[in-house]
Amino acid sequence: MTIERVSFVAGACGEWRIQSVTAITGAGLPVATHLKRQEGGEPEDGATWTLRGVRSHQRYTQRPEAATLMARQAGLDRHDASHGALLPIVKSEAWWHLAQDDRRAIFEETSHHIAIGTEYLPMIARRLYHGRDLGEPFDFLTWFEYAPAHSAAFAELLSRLRATEEWRYVVREIDIRVVRS
Amino acid sequence: MTIERVSFVAGACGEWRIQSVTAITGAGLPVATHLKRQEGGEPEDGATWTLRGVRSHQRYTQRPEAATLMARQAGLDRHDASHGALLPIVKSEAWWHLAQDDRRAIFEETSHHIAIGTEYLPMIARRLYHGRDLGEPFDFLTWFEYAPAHSAAFAELLSRLRATEEWRYVVREIDIRVVRS
Repeated sequence: MTIERVSFVAGACGEWRIQSVTAITGAGLPVATHLKRQEGGEPEDGATWTLRGVRSHQRYTQRPEAATLMARQAGLDRHDASHGALLPIVKSEAWWHLAQDDRRAIFEETSHHIAIGTEYLPMIARRLYHGRDLGEPFDFLTWFEYAPAHSAAFAELLSRLRATEEWRYVVREIDIRVVRS
Repeated sequence: MTIERVSFVAGACGEWRIQSVTAITGAGLPVATHLKRQEGGEPEDGATWTLRGVRSHQRYTQRPEAATLMARQAGLDRHDASHGALLPIVKSEAWWHLAQDDRRAIFEETSHHIAIGTEYLPMIARRLYHGRDLGEPFDFLTWFEYAPAHSAAFAELLSRLRATEEWRYVVREIDIRVVRS
């Protein structure tokens, strides 16, 4: 549970080739050809853009959900997971003003965020990074990896999440799709 | 709910004169004569030490508790609140590995952290800053302000909190007492 910093560095090189950068809600990001996900250390200069965050403790997950996730979760860097996606997200001030129980209720009891994500495990591997306390432009950076055969499942996962009550609090979202270089 | 950065700067000047720096659990901090609490901006160089954090959203407070706190809370910088205290705290890895519901249960249902603090409002004003996601040495920096007449009440508040189940997860705590210069 050590805090691990991550940098997503867009530029002319990196292990992932960018296929698309789509602004779903709010302002987009400049186009670049490659993306690098770097955990730890300081990224080099000269990037088109760099998004930063930290791996940190879980904010809404309850014990039975954590146990299920632990049992079903998939690691990153699987040989066949040649497709990736980065979803930077900002939630509204109204969201952050809600009490913890109200946020939890919207997140899971109403929107089933954890339950939906769990349905797609271990097909769609996922890692969440937090940027809000760092003063970064995005509250969350969520990274996904999956095999090409699961592209339709990934599209369905996103479609279901974006239809939730929780997503009404998303004021900026960018959808960045990549494949291994 | 904008993220506001804070720096607690210990050195040769500042609006608060340091009376004591006591290591309650774990390693202490070097002695200095003055303390400055600076929200926003970048502190000057030359400090004996600087502790950083952010004001951020509430992590455990439920809606009725938030309403009670809002109704009873006291602001900082009250004319008669000439005494202050800074309590930097680190919680154990075991704490951060707990699920959200387990942390909440220890925090409030077992340890009554919010309920105890509320009893001392508006006498003891309090502001919490988070440092963990920033990679700072302390997970929390809690700042208190109170009138001299409420010194005994403040001692009682700390004594009650330190006797809780929650405090068994505190692996480093420093108690810094100050008075207005």
